[in-house]
Amino acid sequence: MIRIAIDAMGGDFGPEPIVAGVVEALKEVSFSAILVGDSNALKHLIPSKFQKFVHFVEASEVISMSDSATDALKRKDSSIYIAIEMLRNKEVDAVVSAGHSGATMSLATLRVGRIKGIARPAIATLMPNTSDSTTLVLDVGANVDCKAENLFQFAVMGESYAKEILNRKSPRVGLLSNGEEKSKGNEVTKEAFGMLSRMKSFVGNAEGNQVFDGSVDVVVCDGFIGNILLKTSEGVADAIGKIIKKHAKKSPLAIAGSVLMKRVFKVLKKQVSYDEYGGAPLLGVNGCVIVSHGKSNPKAIKNAIFQAVNFSHSHINKLIEEELNKFKTLSDE
Amino acid sequence: MIRIAIDAMGGDFGPEPIVAGVVEALKEVSFSAILVGDSNALKHLIPSKFQKFVHFVEASEVISMSDSATDALKRKDSSIYIAIEMLRNKEVDAVVSAGHSGATMSLATLRVGRIKGIARPAIATLMPNTSDSTTLVLDVGANVDCKAENLFQFAVMGESYAKEILNRKSPRVGLLSNGEEKSKGNEVTKEAFGMLSRMKSFVGNAEGNQVFDGSVDVVVCDGFIGNILLKTSEGVADAIGKIIKKHAKKSPLAIAGSVLMKRVFKVLKKQVSYDEYGGAPLLGVNGCVIVSHGKSNPKAIKNAIFQAVNFSHSHINKLIEEELNKFKTLSDE
Repeated sequence: MIRIAIDAMGGDFGPEPIVAGVVEALKEVSFSAILVGDSNALKHLIPSKFQKFVHFVEASEVISMSDSATDALKRKDSSIYIAIEMLRNKEVDAVVSAGHSGATMSLATLRVGRIKGIARPAIATLMPNTSDSTTLVLDVGANVDCKAENLFQFAVMGESYAKEILNRKSPRVGLLSNGEEKSKGNEVTKEAFGMLSRMKSFVGNAEGNQVFDGSVDVVVCDGFIGNILLKTSEGVADAIGKIIKKHAKKSPLAIAGSVLMKRVFKVLKKQVSYDEYGGAPLLGVNGCVIVSHGKSNPKAIKNAIFQAVNFSHSHINKLIEEELNKFKTLSDE
Repeated sequence: MIRIAIDAMGGDFGPEPIVAGVVEALKEVSFSAILVGDSNALKHLIPSKFQKFVHFVEASEVISMSDSATDALKRKDSSIYIAIEMLRNKEVDAVVSAGHSGATMSLATLRVGRIKGIARPAIATLMPNTSDSTTLVLDVGANVDCKAENLFQFAVMGESYAKEILNRKSPRVGLLSNGEEKSKGNEVTKEAFGMLSRMKSFVGNAEGNQVFDGSVDVVVCDGFIGNILLKTSEGVADAIGKIIKKHAKKSPLAIAGSVLMKRVFKVLKKQVSYDEYGGAPLLGVNGCVIVSHGKSNPKAIKNAIFQAVNFSHSHINKLIEEELNKFKTLSDE
């Protein structure tokens, strides 16, 4: 059975939504849950019929959002440190954390280690698109300054994720740029374009709107731009929602309209909402680490656990290493 | 009277929408329109009662979208070359072009010249926000690789534009970054943060969503990221529109709802649509150049002309030079 360590203490709202999410997940899939944290605060949150699937590992400390990521390495009694250490020691197959994402990344990279050939792990996230599917975007925050070779490695990781986890047979990988033409890009992406061109799955530069139109499966960028892309998307969706609400209030006809449209807005919300995806896999580390939002609700945690289960059942890390090896051999020739 | 040279040939749809926009503008404001292009193809498009406000300057060539921006410098008979040359020679006060934006920028920078202290001009664009106002974003495409000092100069130009053209008394200038904290950013933005901190109007880092929430008046970024921000926003808005349409079709109630919501959607479309703003000013050149979208309709051209009129009536370029001088004096001390 897949063993998943869950940092039960790290979320913004304490252990309740995290544990509730674990219980929701247990109702649907079979796995062994290892809750890392203060067992006294956790045990009573598990209904008796699920207790046999849940184990507790004590952790007396929590890394809070205001702590620095580098501090995390010294705080060996923190819930995330202990969860990551269990992954390092192969006592679990995966870690899910809604805690300090910088701390999770640092610990995963330094304690669990990287896949051979990967200089820097990346955080990947799924965005909904209008082809009723999703687009994988990476990196969305782990690496603010990237070299061309980092972007190339992100592309290989994204392609492998699309194949192994999203079941896309021939994923299309695009390089985020300021125009479709090969001549477009900044210094780093222009250099990366050449490296990505060796990949069969590379379809060229992708523009910002292509994240949402289903024309590519994977979009590659540095973590600075990836963060701006995510926040911009949230901002636009929020703004549109607010404008609709505001103007709908102004006329009785529009109020009636918005009531009738309710189901549509619900679908819309579901399609763009974070908790449908649950978490972002940290790709490039020697194990499975899913980074969830600090504000995760039980549904988000449940979906993050599903991601961890799929990841653990897959051969993605082996595939990433093999793919990188292919290109290594190519450049050695 | 303000004299505006209009590149009548450069748009994607030929001269018709451009000239129609000029006529629309003439109905509302007083200016002298100089249409640069093939006068035989243009003259009959002007209703007789407006002909006294319209002059024609012959140009036998057009720079097409597939031409390279550097070619534009050699094509001295093209409509955009001649329009820019008239600005250089002070025969007109402003240029509006819906043609090849790269060519327009190169010509404006090299033939008209830059404001003293500005290393690189930038394209600025207005985005709607939920405070029923707009946010100025620059650069959105002129400069893909920027140094910290370029970003600082963009900030000064954006602040001046917000004061002089948008009539914001105390504009708030934000530096686009991957987090609000001072510690966030990539190498270039972290260096720029220090330089921008000398400006009274600087409010710190701004995240992608802040472009749309009205918390800042000006957002500063390099042209690579600016382009991605624009395209991402368009992509999200398009996707939401499509999802609403698709699901609204599925149930009779939702169809009724969407009919009743029609007016709301119209307001929404107006608020986010390009033609409300008309064009993007090229800031940092010694004159007024408004870059319009190749697909501009008459309304967009009309609004671009209004921008050119406001710009020409303002003292923005003088203000930019004075502001830069202040900081120069500061660093000389």
